[in-house]
Amino acid sequence: MSNETKPYAIGIDMGGTNTDIGLVDRDGHCLARKNLPMGRYTEIGAYVADVAAAIHQLVADRNLTFSEIAGAGIGAPNGNFFTGCIEHASNLVFTGVVPLAKLLGEQLPVPVALTNDANAAALGEKVYGGARNMNDFIVITLGTGVGSGIFADGKLVYGHDGFGGEVGHTILHPGGRLCTCGRKGCLEEYASARGIIQNYREVCEENRREAYIEADCRWLTEAANKGDMMAIRAWEVTAWHLGIGIANAATTLAPEAIFLMGGIINAGRWLFDPLRAIFNEHLLCMQKGKITILPTQLNANDAAILGAAALVQL
Amino acid sequence: MSNETKPYAIGIDMGGTNTDIGLVDRDGHCLARKNLPMGRYTEIGAYVADVAAAIHQLVADRNLTFSEIAGAGIGAPNGNFFTGCIEHASNLVFTGVVPLAKLLGEQLPVPVALTNDANAAALGEKVYGGARNMNDFIVITLGTGVGSGIFADGKLVYGHDGFGGEVGHTILHPGGRLCTCGRKGCLEEYASARGIIQNYREVCEENRREAYIEADCRWLTEAANKGDMMAIRAWEVTAWHLGIGIANAATTLAPEAIFLMGGIINAGRWLFDPLRAIFNEHLLCMQKGKITILPTQLNANDAAILGAAALVQL
Repeated sequence: MSNETKPYAIGIDMGGTNTDIGLVDRDGHCLARKNLPMGRYTEIGAYVADVAAAIHQLVADRNLTFSEIAGAGIGAPNGNFFTGCIEHASNLVFTGVVPLAKLLGEQLPVPVALTNDANAAALGEKVYGGARNMNDFIVITLGTGVGSGIFADGKLVYGHDGFGGEVGHTILHPGGRLCTCGRKGCLEEYASARGIIQNYREVCEENRREAYIEADCRWLTEAANKGDMMAIRAWEVTAWHLGIGIANAATTLAPEAIFLMGGIINAGRWLFDPLRAIFNEHLLCMQKGKITILPTQLNANDAAILGAAALVQL
Repeated sequence: MSNETKPYAIGIDMGGTNTDIGLVDRDGHCLARKNLPMGRYTEIGAYVADVAAAIHQLVADRNLTFSEIAGAGIGAPNGNFFTGCIEHASNLVFTGVVPLAKLLGEQLPVPVALTNDANAAALGEKVYGGARNMNDFIVITLGTGVGSGIFADGKLVYGHDGFGGEVGHTILHPGGRLCTCGRKGCLEEYASARGIIQNYREVCEENRREAYIEADCRWLTEAANKGDMMAIRAWEVTAWHLGIGIANAATTLAPEAIFLMGGIINAGRWLFDPLRAIFNEHLLCMQKGKITILPTQLNANDAAILGAAALVQL
């Protein structure tokens, strides 16, 4: 059976807290999954052995053989597709350069590939989601950070060294808020979960209102739903920053659509309505009204696993 | 003879003031050229007839036949590769949507293709210049405006609608200087010829010095050579804006190199030295020191013709 006709793939979503492993069919259904809490591991050998064991178990549980599995794809923070390595991920216990694709490949009879989580998200949208018929699109992941995966002419943009697609670290406000990357004014500091809460605090301060001390993005959506003007305004300010940031990416790349992914999109119309207006306002004339902003068409629970699986099923 | 082995191509550089037409060989030598002043024309039919006649003349003068010509490539403002049309170019007498590739193709026995001038510049660098062995690079054209052409994985990024690669119109300073495109804070307003002179005026004002009223970019370079601190500072300020702008493009695309083109690069070290430092400072850690900024490797007089010819000789 050639890889293109193999009916299943393994998707591995590696995060700072958990690794989720799923068995995925060609239609983008996650048929079974396993979870490994990262707290168990201090060294990479034990981790790779457990991931491999979980995959063998998933395959055996469904009475499948590896001849029906196209491969295993890994979405990991700072994952480099070209080298198959995780390179200096700050939120993992495994430090330095970790050749994860090679290590896991030694314990599986199928190909293993690795990329970063935002590139995996874009692959998932292309293979199983709303971008199936698109060649030029961008996926923006909004969460602890702001990531992006870019498709140009039907291919993921890896760039020269595998680090293409860092729209979240384009500088939106030179000299602005200090980013975790050490530079100032990155889009991430205005549109990630922490950036949004900072927007809310500044809105409250400008309006001389006390900010809710335990505010997070979920609370901010609920507060907007209840008519809290500070919360509504915080989403508008977020939309302003994000709208200009992704308009710049669109001006550079002329995509057909931009997909947003991550828990923050649950803000719904509080985010999307002002975002679409501000985005459009900041496009060049010839692009206005031609580029759609959409929420991901992948199921939120499975999106990261699907993206990783897409890496070996594209 | 297949197109790939045909030894010559025609390059047409269409500008607001002149159209330059050249006969180009596969090594990137412009063997002969003709010039048509645009002031002669009020309607497209007469213009196309004269361009076709000039091409026939160039071919006949060298005792060639069209079987040896791969085609004719046009670099034009607002040129759209997908449609072969010039779409609403503000600096041409021909208004609206002009199907130039089709019109010229009707008068020539070879294929005709069209793209915008910055994309043509990138094609020229790829086929004849410093990017021959590169798959991921960006060409920035600095002149009346700031244009860009992007190569990702060996292919020019046209985007969904043919308008990809407008790095000059990414917004560098939200709410900043009013751009000719109608929006505010575009990179172009800080790094084009007029933007640079505005930088100079602001530097003089900040330092309570009188600005030279007739300053242009050539004067600004000469003044810097003579030790004029306001001029040197104006180049540094320009490098700051341009450095952040192209660092953002590099963060998005992870190119191997960025080439600068246009008369402004004659500023030499006054521009390039601070630009390289500021660019590098505004890259993510994993990219620092890995992306080169270079002047175009094409001869300035021929660059635009070569770029247009590259469109049919890639």
